[in-house]
Amino acid sequence: MKKEFVVVGLGRFGGSICRELVEQGADVLAIDQDPERVDEFASIATQAVVADTTDEQALVSLGIRNFEHVIVAIGEDIQSSILTTLILKELGVEKITVKAQNDYHAKVLQKIGADQVVHPERDMGIRIANNMISNNILDYLELSDEHSIMEIKANEMLAGHSILDLDIRARYGINIVAIKRGEDVVVSPMAEEPIHEGDILIIIGSDADILRFEKKALH
Amino acid sequence: MKKEFVVVGLGRFGGSICRELVEQGADVLAIDQDPERVDEFASIATQAVVADTTDEQALVSLGIRNFEHVIVAIGEDIQSSILTTLILKELGVEKITVKAQNDYHAKVLQKIGADQVVHPERDMGIRIANNMISNNILDYLELSDEHSIMEIKANEMLAGHSILDLDIRARYGINIVAIKRGEDVVVSPMAEEPIHEGDILIIIGSDADILRFEKKALH
Ligand SMILES: Nc1ncnc2c1ncn2[C@@H]1O[C@H](COP(=O)(O)OP(=O)(O)OP(=O)(O)O)[C@@H](O)[C@H]1O
Ligand SMILES: Nc1ncnc2c1ncn2[C@@H]1O[C@H](COP(=O)(O)OP(=O)(O)OP(=O)(O)O)[C@@H](O)[C@H]1O
Ligand SMILES: [Ca+2]
Ligand SMILES: [Ca+2]
Ligand SMILES: [Ca+2]
Ligand SMILES: [Ca+2]
Repeated sequence: MKKEFVVVGLGRFGGSICRELVEQGADVLAIDQDPERVDEFASIATQAVVADTTDEQALVSLGIRNFEHVIVAIGEDIQSSILTTLILKELGVEKITVKAQNDYHAKVLQKIGADQVVHPERDMGIRIANNMISNNILDYLELSDEHSIMEIKANEMLAGHSILDLDIRARYGINIVAIKRGEDVVVSPMAEEPIHEGDILIIIGSDADILRFEKKALH
Repeated sequence: MKKEFVVVGLGRFGGSICRELVEQGADVLAIDQDPERVDEFASIATQAVVADTTDEQALVSLGIRNFEHVIVAIGEDIQSSILTTLILKELGVEKITVKAQNDYHAKVLQKIGADQVVHPERDMGIRIANNMISNNILDYLELSDEHSIMEIKANEMLAGHSILDLDIRARYGINIVAIKRGEDVVVSPMAEEPIHEGDILIIIGSDADILRFEKKALH
């Protein structure tokens, strides 16, 4: 069964969600009060309609409660975001995700029953800052407060050596789970695998151990 | 040596970058033309000043070219974003990262020499959409077009079995690189490790294999 979603608010954030959901094969009802934005998504979304989602009757007519998951991507107009969420909740929508502009907005959304509150600008800011801090750390997945998986660019200090050679596990307590080489990905590389300059190492470990590796092995 | 950054534009995105850079121990000069925003960051950034960054003289006085990396987080006012980037480039700033509002904006920024162009709302939209598509996939790191690392919630279908038991590697071609259990992270779990309901499995493999695992093993 295909998943059915509703995206309210077709700005950069909501618009991107709509596009990606459709690309992944989902059915999406796209809603905005601005006819120009709706026009833009007429050929992208499964269905695109002009509606003010603070109008309960409009949402009822659209059969909103038959959808599995509604995302409210109204940003600037915090009042509309809150009112829309409240109405969706009252109409019995199963899952509601809402974009928050600030902590106060987030708190209100949680109180009125939003299932998930997201802070796209804040969270992407944190990601970008972490990428800026290290020239070698390209991307990462935070596993816990203290553990991460990181993509680290191998430089000339590592090139030519094998994993065994560098004794990474014993010396730094970290594991190489994969090596990215151009478009290829070597999963669970052998200890004898030689590291080339420009390889991207996917490593797992505690943040402290990874930092130690990054500082000692790459400089 | 401490890294020195400049953040221009203290909205949600730029503000978040500033906070995270400082938290990570970096020195940050925060700039905004709005005195209220600058006030808010006076106690957060290493230094916070009111300035219009489209004014070349103002940037020269701030000694902007002594900083390693400048991020331009001006969004709405595309013209100011472009002009600021152009001036920074002409003043010889080493690395410039700029937030783009749309593809046209991004293209201009690249043409005038921005080293990195970021689309926070679009990229976070893609992340959120992927999380919405699957109830089990909590987070992920894209390794290539075809390979990913994913966080998948273990359900009652997996609970009680060991990795050996489930024969995940042979049956699905994927590897479990870690298991998150509450705040604990078990890195490179043994084949005998029993999976508990609520465990979060960190798996690596091709997108197709992961999808197959997610469809077959979890439903
Ligand atoms: N009550 C409402 N009903 C329907 N759509 C609404 C309502 N209020 C706002 N919107 C729509 O929500 C969309 C997103 O609003 P916002 O002001 O956050 O735009 P934005 O700054 O372009 O968003 P982004 O930060 O994602 O780029 C707009 O297209 C706006 O028309
Ligand atoms: N020429 C300029 N010089 C200095 N600061 C500027 C200039 N132009 C805009 N800014 C500042 O850039 C900041 C970000 O602008 P934007 O309009 O994108 O705000 P925002 O919507 O709050 O951002 P976000 O999407 O990150 O939440 C604002 O605080 C604004 O005062
Ligand atoms: Ca952390
Ligand atoms: Ca905005
Ligand atoms: Ca925004
Ligand atoms: Ca992909």
